[in-house]
Amino acid sequence: MIIGKVVGSVVSTRKNENLIGNKFMVVEPLNDFGNSAEKIVAIDNIGAGIGEIVLVALGSAARIGCGVASAPIDAAIVGIIDNGTGLSGVIK
Amino acid sequence: MIIGKVVGSVVSTRKNENLIGNKFMVVEPLNDFGNSAEKIVAIDNIGAGIGEIVLVALGSAARIGCGVASAPIDAAIVGIIDNGTGLSGVIK
Amino acid sequence: MIIGKVVGSVVSTRKNENLIGNKFMVVEPLNDFGNSAEKIVAIDNIGAGIGEIVLVALGSAARIGCGVASAPIDAAIVGIIDNGTGLSGVIK
Amino acid sequence: MIIGKVVGSVVSTRKNENLIGNKFMVVEPLNDFGNSAEKIVAIDNIGAGIGEIVLVALGSAARIGCGVASAPIDAAIVGIIDNGTGLSGVIK
Amino acid sequence: MIIGKVVGSVVSTRKNENLIGNKFMVVEPLNDFGNSAEKIVAIDNIGAGIGEIVLVALGSAARIGCGVASAPIDAAIVGIIDNGTGLSGVIK
Repeated sequence: MIIGKVVGSVVSTRKNENLIGNKFMVVEPLNDFGNSAEKIVAIDNIGAGIGEIVLVALGSAARIGCGVASAPIDAAIVGIIDNGTGLSGVIK
Repeated sequence: MIIGKVVGSVVSTRKNENLIGNKFMVVEPLNDFGNSAEKIVAIDNIGAGIGEIVLVALGSAARIGCGVASAPIDAAIVGIIDNGTGLSGVIK
Repeated sequence: MIIGKVVGSVVSTRKNENLIGNKFMVVEPLNDFGNSAEKIVAIDNIGAGIGEIVLVALGSAARIGCGVASAPIDAAIVGIIDNGTGLSGVIK
Repeated sequence: MIIGKVVGSVVSTRKNENLIGNKFMVVEPLNDFGNSAEKIVAIDNIGAGIGEIVLVALGSAARIGCGVASAPIDAAIVGIIDNGTGLSGVIK
Repeated sequence: MIIGKVVGSVVSTRKNENLIGNKFMVVEPLNDFGNSAEKIVAIDNIGAGIGEIVLVALGSAARIGCGVASAPIDAAIVGIIDNGTGLSGVIK
């Protein structure tokens, strides 16, 4: 998984029907996990808000681990980070 | 998922039979999600047109989430983006 | 999927038995899809020749979509490109 | 798999329920396997400590190979490296 | 798949029990397939030796194609390359 900051969200009216009901957040990886040109659109079903630092699961784990196994989803916010060590920046 | 712009399409007559009936669009990631040398060929079954900004699912999610689980497809356009926040450029 | 040019092939006598009977082509991504140091070895069961521009599926899609679900294959040539738009170079 | 050093851990109270009970370690790839801006958050169920050099499995292998097939987990520490050859640095 | 050279191996005593019995080789991609900072640890069940040029399968293909579907393995040596064309260097 990687850690990033929720920096925004996107809206899509015309979309695959298996996506209906999901929120699509824009996550920017922390510097330790990538760069600002490697943002990810991830679904959020734990209620992360803009500015929060989150754990993101990628690949089949996002679908299968979040109860949306048959949806075209390859990234999901799966936790809100409270604190951490070993990172070059400070969380919060 | 990533967000990109539909910049073109490709035609293939001689192809794997599980691909028949699909449209193959060329998607260029927005700057926030990659660079112009990381384009993707994605199937489109929601009717995205050239120039539209779209959500693209990658990996097994593209096959399984789009009803083509047994096709050799690793990328699919799954939504047309209406608007968004947290991106460095403006959508539309 | 990505688009590349078939630039060669490799031969392996001592190999996993699930690979027997496959041809292994060396595919170089077109500039729009990567660089020359990111070549891929892909199986070919549609008869692509050296110099042809092909569509390549990556990951589980290659195995499952090409009838070799139990083989250790992560890339397959799945179409020969006739023509396309939205690419920085000309196909053919 | 890649080899990295355990450099820290993160805590998440509000998280996907399938993640409960897992420890989340921050792993920095050794120079041979990436760079310090490509850290990974991996679960650990073999008891790796800070500073240890570990083997990390990525993708579906992490879920399926570690008995957490239905959790949104895409990386797992699966071994502690005792020693090795062919690496540019010394392990330990 | 990618092609690399076997440059070493690693030993892990404390490891996930599904890994027991496997050999872990360090593979450095040939220049055509990556760079020396993108080494991979791959299992080897075809008996590749140090210095040999090998075909490596990545992702779920490594597990499922090599008879270790329930092990946390994301890379496997699946063939020893005898010769090839279309590569910038000479094999052997």
